Amino acid sequence: MSDLPQPLDGDPAARILVAGASGYAGALAAHLVWNHPRLELALATARSGVGERLDRLYPRYRAQIELTELDLDEIEAADAAIVAYPHGAAAPVVAALRGLGVQVVDLSADYRLRDIPTYEKWYGPHGDPDLLQNAVYGLPELHRARVAAGELVANPGCYPTAALLALAPLAEAGLIESVVIDAKSGVSGAGRDGGEAMSFVSRTGNCAAYGLDGHRHLPEIEQELGSLQPRGRAAAAVTFVPHLLPVDQGLLASCYVDLSEELEEEALARLYDDRYRDEPFVEVTESPPGIRDVRETNLCRVHATGVGERKAAVFAAIDNLWKGASGQAIQNLNLMLGLDEREGLR
Amino acid sequence: MSDLPQPLDGDPAARILVAGASGYAGALAAHLVWNHPRLELALATARSGVGERLDRLYPRYRAQIELTELDLDEIEAADAAIVAYPHGAAAPVVAALRGLGVQVVDLSADYRLRDIPTYEKWYGPHGDPDLLQNAVYGLPELHRARVAAGELVANPGCYPTAALLALAPLAEAGLIESVVIDAKSGVSGAGRDGGEAMSFVSRTGNCAAYGLDGHRHLPEIEQELGSLQPRGRAAAAVTFVPHLLPVDQGLLASCYVDLSEELEEEALARLYDDRYRDEPFVEVTESPPGIRDVRETNLCRVHATGVGERKAAVFAAIDNLWKGASGQAIQNLNLMLGLDEREGLR
Amino acid sequence: MSDLPQPLDGDPAARILVAGASGYAGALAAHLVWNHPRLELALATARSGVGERLDRLYPRYRAQIELTELDLDEIEAADAAIVAYPHGAAAPVVAALRGLGVQVVDLSADYRLRDIPTYEKWYGPHGDPDLLQNAVYGLPELHRARVAAGELVANPGCYPTAALLALAPLAEAGLIESVVIDAKSGVSGAGRDGGEAMSFVSRTGNCAAYGLDGHRHLPEIEQELGSLQPRGRAAAAVTFVPHLLPVDQGLLASCYVDLSEELEEEALARLYDDRYRDEPFVEVTESPPGIRDVRETNLCRVHATGVGERKAAVFAAIDNLWKGASGQAIQNLNLMLGLDEREGLR
Amino acid sequence: MSDLPQPLDGDPAARILVAGASGYAGALAAHLVWNHPRLELALATARSGVGERLDRLYPRYRAQIELTELDLDEIEAADAAIVAYPHGAAAPVVAALRGLGVQVVDLSADYRLRDIPTYEKWYGPHGDPDLLQNAVYGLPELHRARVAAGELVANPGCYPTAALLALAPLAEAGLIESVVIDAKSGVSGAGRDGGEAMSFVSRTGNCAAYGLDGHRHLPEIEQELGSLQPRGRAAAAVTFVPHLLPVDQGLLASCYVDLSEELEEEALARLYDDRYRDEPFVEVTESPPGIRDVRETNLCRVHATGVGERKAAVFAAIDNLWKGASGQAIQNLNLMLGLDEREGLR
Repeated sequence: MSDLPQPLDGDPAARILVAGASGYAGALAAHLVWNHPRLELALATARSGVGERLDRLYPRYRAQIELTELDLDEIEAADAAIVAYPHGAAAPVVAALRGLGVQVVDLSADYRLRDIPTYEKWYGPHGDPDLLQNAVYGLPELHRARVAAGELVANPGCYPTAALLALAPLAEAGLIESVVIDAKSGVSGAGRDGGEAMSFVSRTGNCAAYGLDGHRHLPEIEQELGSLQPRGRAAAAVTFVPHLLPVDQGLLASCYVDLSEELEEEALARLYDDRYRDEPFVEVTESPPGIRDVRETNLCRVHATGVGERKAAVFAAIDNLWKGASGQAIQNLNLMLGLDEREGLR
Repeated sequence: MSDLPQPLDGDPAARILVAGASGYAGALAAHLVWNHPRLELALATARSGVGERLDRLYPRYRAQIELTELDLDEIEAADAAIVAYPHGAAAPVVAALRGLGVQVVDLSADYRLRDIPTYEKWYGPHGDPDLLQNAVYGLPELHRARVAAGELVANPGCYPTAALLALAPLAEAGLIESVVIDAKSGVSGAGRDGGEAMSFVSRTGNCAAYGLDGHRHLPEIEQELGSLQPRGRAAAAVTFVPHLLPVDQGLLASCYVDLSEELEEEALARLYDDRYRDEPFVEVTESPPGIRDVRETNLCRVHATGVGERKAAVFAAIDNLWKGASGQAIQNLNLMLGLDEREGLR
Repeated sequence: MSDLPQPLDGDPAARILVAGASGYAGALAAHLVWNHPRLELALATARSGVGERLDRLYPRYRAQIELTELDLDEIEAADAAIVAYPHGAAAPVVAALRGLGVQVVDLSADYRLRDIPTYEKWYGPHGDPDLLQNAVYGLPELHRARVAAGELVANPGCYPTAALLALAPLAEAGLIESVVIDAKSGVSGAGRDGGEAMSFVSRTGNCAAYGLDGHRHLPEIEQELGSLQPRGRAAAAVTFVPHLLPVDQGLLASCYVDLSEELEEEALARLYDDRYRDEPFVEVTESPPGIRDVRETNLCRVHATGVGERKAAVFAAIDNLWKGASGQAIQNLNLMLGLDEREGLR
Repeated sequence: MSDLPQPLDGDPAARILVAGASGYAGALAAHLVWNHPRLELALATARSGVGERLDRLYPRYRAQIELTELDLDEIEAADAAIVAYPHGAAAPVVAALRGLGVQVVDLSADYRLRDIPTYEKWYGPHGDPDLLQNAVYGLPELHRARVAAGELVANPGCYPTAALLALAPLAEAGLIESVVIDAKSGVSGAGRDGGEAMSFVSRTGNCAAYGLDGHRHLPEIEQELGSLQPRGRAAAAVTFVPHLLPVDQGLLASCYVDLSEELEEEALARLYDDRYRDEPFVEVTESPPGIRDVRETNLCRVHATGVGERKAAVFAAIDNLWKGASGQAIQNLNLMLGLDEREGLR
């Protein structure tokens, strides 16, 4: 089989750097840019695996590009960047790229929390609080206009993406008093270096909760849910417990909401239908969605139903690597570059 | 390999009939009786597969016994029976066996609900209300003495087993105001005739909620949870949502409790340790249990922790075919026959 | 989410009927036609599920088309057809479509064997021997020109596709004396109605051989392998044993060849590199391919190596639903319609 | 749940050391000794995890024993030992234990090959060639009497166990001219430290060959197969290719034999039935065995059938951790100690 050029439709709208392309999310981001009809994959850098071709490292991805070390002097080759570094390691790279005028979608948690004390409670001191406060939380369904105008977009975590899309219609209507989010994720959510705990033998046939001493996605959910509540309403109490599934890709958020007032089944259905009618990547379903049905897509499938007096259950299924990470990064990048947000994600 | 006799220690304590031995739960029950040091597997009957040897139908089970049709005239060969028929089909068989003086553990839901109107709301008319009211709900950790004295024991459902063992210590202390039970089960819980919905292709890599219009295990959980509440306390509100995991055997109940009063972490731990210290099949763990760790055992592993103000999360993991069905049936049978309840279940 | 039109680039090159679109292969074929930039999905018919929308039946597929009954009077709406009927049921439909002048890719085995006695030995009498003899065996890597000129293309079986792509370079060089093909397939190969044998519980954690009394793909492999041998060489003896993997999609053919003469490792590598250099869907790899790396692609990844004196091992991995069925059907259709064979399959 | 003593029947027949009890095979060996009615688990040592209790490290195993460092001065506490160290690391420990008069079953490859040059070709210099030559190859079905009389038993590899049990009846009859062994193993065969290649994400939905440059189990198979051939017959040519399955435990060896003479189906069946009639752990089956049916048992299930002229296919299924490692170690230990070889393995 001969090597193929990128399948571009005419001149690219932008040349893209993917930094951290050897991890699961970065590699998928590079693959998606490579196959994007309007974007050129200009550079793919990595901290390990330098010199290797990406489609050799991940044969199921087609990006025929060699991984290089990140060299900020070569950054002029790129108009925009997707940064897929671990939390903490991302901030300095993002800051440097922004200093050079490069638009950035950052997949780490480093720019997701706007409140400095909250950030520092969970992550320690932040090196660049100004940049932090100017970052846009990149959930397009909540902040499309701000993403489109943004220079630095913090791509949401996988759990917050599913939970917030499940809860936004109720939150915006001021209907959430408290919510329990029982979330179930595929193993790829733990990244490529999960060690023995993420081995096949440890995870097959298994399911367990984890992170009960506080998962870093909780403040992210609280921040965004709080900002959706109508002015004057108390913040909803959020219980968030993640579980691991014996699955590679896929994430289901099962959300149990104590409603502030009774809601007829029909009104609940209409609330969700109306909210998401025009969203290209959110589909309201008639029965509880399965993660298999969104695999390798940027879709979030949502189902809401009453489960008792002033009680609703809402289920949201995504692919944690797509809508929960790299697919959403492309959606954000499309918006930032003025493209149709569906480009390269069909 | 030559055929082997049953590995009995001396004369059997009782001769056992397993009715419905061609389904998952019945076959495991027959296997466990076959390997039990004190019980003799006298008869294994089935509605399909008659004439076939059980260890040919399920090669991983060792019971070298031929499946026969159920013939009540031959029942004198048995002192006690495990009935593993579908709901509705079980009641007439159980009634006939009781009429012949045979002690019965029934795996169906036909004798689990004591309240006739509740029964009829979920299942329709019951043919034998008297027998229904004399049946014992066979969760030994809650009703050990009554099981030991019982003639007809209704083996609990798999979800109620896990949920009730998770919640009993809090319920008995009158601490539960309301609870959300997000339960996750392996596919064998759906039985052997699950059709296309339970095919490998439908379930692998998948996870979804189901039964949102009301699962029959809900009234069972409500009945038992209500009976544990101290006199005078209102019944706890229960939300119960089952999910399917891409796993053959295993069940995790994640229970989110609104407590009626604040509970220190230490007091919570002591509550569970004290309650289950002497239980042979309940283990209180220091971290959230995984279903893999209880596979092919009769254990329930439980972990409780605070997750916010007046909020606790409790996780219980069982094997749905063992502690959730056939293992628990053996435990009940042991008690009814005056044997050590651990016999045949180590 | 609003419904979307088909993403066509300008006027379609052809309007396509997919007959039998409710099974695994037919549904994927409809999905691929729907997303094809040059083809219009004109009709999707089914024998069960009529009236249902395809993307409701298979939510992971996007084809927003309602399944209808096959009505030959409406066939003028289609220029070409993909028929995904079971063996035996396909022939009459194919014959009728051909009678109406519709180009057909048939996914069944009904037109794959050219030799009538061989056909009848495995399948019984054939209703239309003339049509049988005019059909083209649709493995483009072997018969590209004939496919392009064909009116009726018999899409190969999944096992023959992998085995023949593994063996073609050696066969064409006259190097195969005999071959053992140990093939391993995902469960979707058994179709949607596999019953209890294809249930999640039966297949998870399992692997076993099957079809030892003769699998219908054997004569297909023998026919094509024989036709590749240089004139005058005896037919290679073929042993073919399929196994089932606990996987939904994917197929690995491990082929052990007794060579008619010694071959240096380098010569072997060159043979494969040269043969497949220009093939868009065959990739020669440096290490044994895994099925995960071709999942949801039309690729066949092949690796050949010496494993002893005059002995070679060749491994070919495909996705049984893509290159082993519906992806290959699109590749064939592209060729028949004069399109780039990669269209709609990137 | 209170801690339990070991379930011993009267005085133990021997006190056992398990060295290397933190790995998969060592932990299972310790679990099996703990539950053995006639053996006492005196010591469980480990190179990592010292101080931890084994049933905390592997909650599904019941051995309530603390892992300690191996201290040869304490060895008087043990009459016999199972050594589960990596290849190379085992030899010095085994030598020291033998020096102290302790009977040893060694799970590594260090004492499996009798021929020093062959050993050195695959593993490098051997520190103790005398001990090597006195070790017994511990496949009881081939060498029962020698195992029973042995002081040092080299437990076979998992692949050789399945392959040799598949092939022994044909080899002993001098019928094997050459054989292709296509073997498929669960991931636990790679041990606990498999790294990213053995992660859940890498292995789920996957299957691939590996070890094509020569797997260390090949000389072991050749040695034993050679010794089974009747005097004067040339050694059978062996092609051995292992594959990884997306399964935790289980191993299937599919063996394709070129027979030296034609064999009727009935004669083939009789050969296997006769050979294994009295073997407690080998079962000859009427259809190809699945690995799921031997999971967590010490059984090997074997099926042989003709697949062409002078061609037979034989399939053997085992659990790689049981009959392929720790179960077989117990079987060997039972024999060495004069116990029924089935004790502790039912």
